[in-house]
Amino acid sequence: MTDPVDLWPDVRPDAAKRLMAAAVDAFAERGFHATTTRDIATAAGMSPAALYVHFPSKAAVLFAISRSGHERALAMVTSAAAGPGDPAARMRDLVAGFTTWHATRHRVARVVQYELHALRPDDFEVVADLRRRTERTVRDLIAAGAADGVFTVADTPTAARAILSLCVDVARWYAPGAKPGPEELGRRYAELVAAMLGAR
Amino acid sequence: MTDPVDLWPDVRPDAAKRLMAAAVDAFAERGFHATTTRDIATAAGMSPAALYVHFPSKAAVLFAISRSGHERALAMVTSAAAGPGDPAARMRDLVAGFTTWHATRHRVARVVQYELHALRPDDFEVVADLRRRTERTVRDLIAAGAADGVFTVADTPTAARAILSLCVDVARWYAPGAKPGPEELGRRYAELVAAMLGAR
Repeated sequence: MTDPVDLWPDVRPDAAKRLMAAAVDAFAERGFHATTTRDIATAAGMSPAALYVHFPSKAAVLFAISRSGHERALAMVTSAAAGPGDPAARMRDLVAGFTTWHATRHRVARVVQYELHALRPDDFEVVADLRRRTERTVRDLIAAGAADGVFTVADTPTAARAILSLCVDVARWYAPGAKPGPEELGRRYAELVAAMLGAR
Repeated sequence: MTDPVDLWPDVRPDAAKRLMAAAVDAFAERGFHATTTRDIATAAGMSPAALYVHFPSKAAVLFAISRSGHERALAMVTSAAAGPGDPAARMRDLVAGFTTWHATRHRVARVVQYELHALRPDDFEVVADLRRRTERTVRDLIAAGAADGVFTVADTPTAARAILSLCVDVARWYAPGAKPGPEELGRRYAELVAAMLGAR
């Protein structure tokens, strides 16, 4: 089962965290639309009424999971892009970290990435803004590398899209125990992306 | 709506094709588990009883869609890998075709790629075999290029996984009207993959 403590250190109280973890499992298993608030509450060991103390609706639980995942992704990417080394070293860190996260957290990542269409319009706008900022960070890092003569890229937006896409899709196919494991997969993907960008 | 004629030229009669198209739309919209046979039949302009003339269950409709999609993917990849030119030219054809397909057919591709866990065990085995053969074809092409000195790759299985993953994930993010369009996106992805493989 999804470990709530590990995923959402900042969410309080623990009951809200347990509900989010139960929702991740249910959404990943059967999809948002086939999951009821009762399913989520029961899996978290609560009554449906207790769920409403913490979340006004099933959609609000999805939004909490999705926003948190997207904020985490943006923070990871921003931190790697602003890290030490030249743009190629920073890109390797970014790809390794983002890939490893999608392998280790593939269950929550599937919900974050595949249930976007189930978000309410206002919630979707918040998440779409986080996604745009994440993508812009990757573009800017590619552009910085190209300006330094470290990367050779014909089309920066398409390359940025491809890099994020490669990392995100790990959540779809990764299974626990797969070889290479999350960390080593991250390192190998970082090398593939460096080659893709013509890193010297 | 999904165009049934275009997607399944070989499926007979037309009623079965219409049911598969209606199921693609419903599964893509709400997921397999939240869709009923009644939803599918109604969207295809039929009664639930009429659906059972063509498919014994909702799971059988999913399997028909999934198997057909995976057979199509294997045929595309096999044909490109056996095509003219050196391994780099064949890999470019493979990636361009596979990417364009996932952009143009993103709705059916989402069902094919994201509802694997909803397949019945025997059906899953059929599909898993098609997936293994598709992946093996890509690995063999990379290995052929490495043997010819055209590609420089440290880890062939991971590179094959990454290439397929890059193409498949297009189905997740592609939206009609996106720029570049499906064909041009395919060409640009082909160049990114060629660089990733160190193609000379």
